[in-house]
Amino acid sequence: MSRPVFLLTDFGLTDTYVGIVKAVILGITPDATIVDLTHDVPPQDIRAGAFALMTVVPYLPPDAVVFAVVDPGVGTARRPIAVEVEGRIFVGPDNGLISWTWQRPSGPALDPTVVSAVVLDRPSYWLPEVSSTFHGRDVFAPVAAHLARGLALTDVGSPTMNLETIPFPAAHQVCGAGGQVRTVRGEVLHVDRYGNLISNIAAADLPADPVVSVGGRTISGLAAHYQGQGADTSERDRPLRPDVRLVALVGSTGFLEVAVPNGSAASALAVGVGAALTVTAREAGLRPPA
Amino acid sequence: MSRPVFLLTDFGLTDTYVGIVKAVILGITPDATIVDLTHDVPPQDIRAGAFALMTVVPYLPPDAVVFAVVDPGVGTARRPIAVEVEGRIFVGPDNGLISWTWQRPSGPALDPTVVSAVVLDRPSYWLPEVSSTFHGRDVFAPVAAHLARGLALTDVGSPTMNLETIPFPAAHQVCGAGGQVRTVRGEVLHVDRYGNLISNIAAADLPADPVVSVGGRTISGLAAHYQGQGADTSERDRPLRPDVRLVALVGSTGFLEVAVPNGSAASALAVGVGAALTVTAREAGLRPPA
Amino acid sequence: MSRPVFLLTDFGLTDTYVGIVKAVILGITPDATIVDLTHDVPPQDIRAGAFALMTVVPYLPPDAVVFAVVDPGVGTARRPIAVEVEGRIFVGPDNGLISWTWQRPSGPALDPTVVSAVVLDRPSYWLPEVSSTFHGRDVFAPVAAHLARGLALTDVGSPTMNLETIPFPAAHQVCGAGGQVRTVRGEVLHVDRYGNLISNIAAADLPADPVVSVGGRTISGLAAHYQGQGADTSERDRPLRPDVRLVALVGSTGFLEVAVPNGSAASALAVGVGAALTVTAREAGLRPPA
Repeated sequence: MSRPVFLLTDFGLTDTYVGIVKAVILGITPDATIVDLTHDVPPQDIRAGAFALMTVVPYLPPDAVVFAVVDPGVGTARRPIAVEVEGRIFVGPDNGLISWTWQRPSGPALDPTVVSAVVLDRPSYWLPEVSSTFHGRDVFAPVAAHLARGLALTDVGSPTMNLETIPFPAAHQVCGAGGQVRTVRGEVLHVDRYGNLISNIAAADLPADPVVSVGGRTISGLAAHYQGQGADTSERDRPLRPDVRLVALVGSTGFLEVAVPNGSAASALAVGVGAALTVTAREAGLRPPA
Repeated sequence: MSRPVFLLTDFGLTDTYVGIVKAVILGITPDATIVDLTHDVPPQDIRAGAFALMTVVPYLPPDAVVFAVVDPGVGTARRPIAVEVEGRIFVGPDNGLISWTWQRPSGPALDPTVVSAVVLDRPSYWLPEVSSTFHGRDVFAPVAAHLARGLALTDVGSPTMNLETIPFPAAHQVCGAGGQVRTVRGEVLHVDRYGNLISNIAAADLPADPVVSVGGRTISGLAAHYQGQGADTSERDRPLRPDVRLVALVGSTGFLEVAVPNGSAASALAVGVGAALTVTAREAGLRPPA
Repeated sequence: MSRPVFLLTDFGLTDTYVGIVKAVILGITPDATIVDLTHDVPPQDIRAGAFALMTVVPYLPPDAVVFAVVDPGVGTARRPIAVEVEGRIFVGPDNGLISWTWQRPSGPALDPTVVSAVVLDRPSYWLPEVSSTFHGRDVFAPVAAHLARGLALTDVGSPTMNLETIPFPAAHQVCGAGGQVRTVRGEVLHVDRYGNLISNIAAADLPADPVVSVGGRTISGLAAHYQGQGADTSERDRPLRPDVRLVALVGSTGFLEVAVPNGSAASALAVGVGAALTVTAREAGLRPPA
């Protein structure tokens, strides 16, 4: 049985690009199990792709081969690579897209060690003709297919340890005079289908009794779930529509989220990716500035 | 060979939620065949999800395991369940989403008997850590995977017969003095990609020679297909664009639909889900009100 | 092991139509590998579907069975067919959708011979009940499933050689007095997710030193890739936004494309499918008209 192949791209599903990639893989490894992670990374947005990939990694089977392609530099000098992280292999361009699989903030679960990486420089594992505009089809898909049928990393390329990385947009902690955390300044990393605002503030970085500020609103306390029975907007808030309630909670990715029960926080607050999000300890919020 | 797993959710395909669910399933049952039914149920719209699921059931293989998750109440007291209906097993929240698989109107085909149902209360079949915001990943996916590899319903939970249901929005028949059906009052249940208006009026409930009214227009007679050679808009109609013709027909779900050949009835009539739709027998339409 | 089944439709992914088709196929051939090519062909747009299918064909495994359904005439006299082209089998309506798999312009790679074609006239290979609105579910899906499990073309239908075709919208070459190509007049065939304008002008039809005109702009020379280091907009151009640069290149389909590095040419030029696109040899462009 071959290793399962997972796909994460910005190709979208409207064109035939994803279908072509799957056809190429099955042409080489007919019994491959191919699974879509997502193809709706915003076009050419490497950071959004890195975040999407990071949310998936803890749940991938240990023998997964991941085709990860967000590749605005296709055809330029950027290198095609494959990286093995705790047994799983990631195939794609060396532009930082894969880098959050081995280096990440204080978020949950993953603490990987990069076992090995190779530059894909063996054309015998590519399609016979290689375009300069679609390495997903011509290089990465056939290499992923060969890895899925059991080839080792060093069969398909030459070792390298010099990989491109992109910095994780870490939240900043501002400490008080006594050294305790007073404020955590973060940002919205992702808005999901439900309009939930997913931040870069990990659960471990939250103060015990947080007050969350975003989009000109504050939310006191954390809810246990999206229906928000544990949350409470502060009385200083400007009123939203009377039927809209905001909740803050630790979401399924391990990061702080802001949500509206049965609604969209992104719409209610009119904020999106990149919006500032701040967390203060409640007692600190009541004191005058030090 | 494991049982095939079908997925129906409101997760969308833009985030990695669906990909994570598939990764979890394959981690437990590596040879699973996983099939998307749809992930574009409108967010948190349980009724739309129940309708989507109902359209699929008659065509599912007899050994299908269905992961059906539209779950605005995740993390609250709503129960996780698995229900076996005529051999097929449905896994999801106990909020009515699954209920039209065993109770439905006079529509076509399905007349199931609920064989058994269980509350999912065996954490040994869940992921080791269970969040309060993504039971699709942490509870329903692993349970579906274990059922796909052959476990019985009673292996993964404790029997219950007390399930949540949501009422099917049945069409109403208004009878004349002689007891015969004069008018059927229904509504638009779903608008599909083509702009076809799919109603809640089953073929069996139509009078012999129907006149269909929707969006301020009437259509006399039923067409055999979407090109509409059997239909005829009445001369009393206000004119639409001269090239737009309306047809009424029994669609592939067994319900009355209104369509525009090579176009969109939803756009032409500017109506959507919930719009009133009425059917009258033609002769009744010509008589003065009784 | 059964033959892989590839799906290309205009069904979209929001409704359950695609899911139902897959359920029907797996009900007949439980070990089928089913692969989505795309389901986002614009509704009822046979030409766009034919183009999408044409881009995929060179990469399909040699034993592929392709379910290709864009079928506005479902239920009318149009025939259901299966066509074998170089070993691959295409199943769908006889409306020209499949015709570019065996007849195409001077584009790359494919030069197929139609081996055989049949009209699907054996109801024993269909679902027991056949609607007049969803032959994808009732006829094409079960036939594709039977072909995937090894049946021959002549098992499921009666031979025909009289198939509908749609003309490929060929580019026109205008030659100068000496017979050499002076101008190629084409059009935009497809706009992809990135906003790249994909034309009907094949690489083989380009002059050696081309000047490309589209949307009121001209681009001198061909780029090697989307980052456009080989391209140069002419000084006669009206200015776009200063940060927008246009490049022309031969794309992964083998046709001339116009792109904006890290951006959308369709947005920058405000043009779409059907827009005129002209290529002139550079030296010709500098001479007065002959």
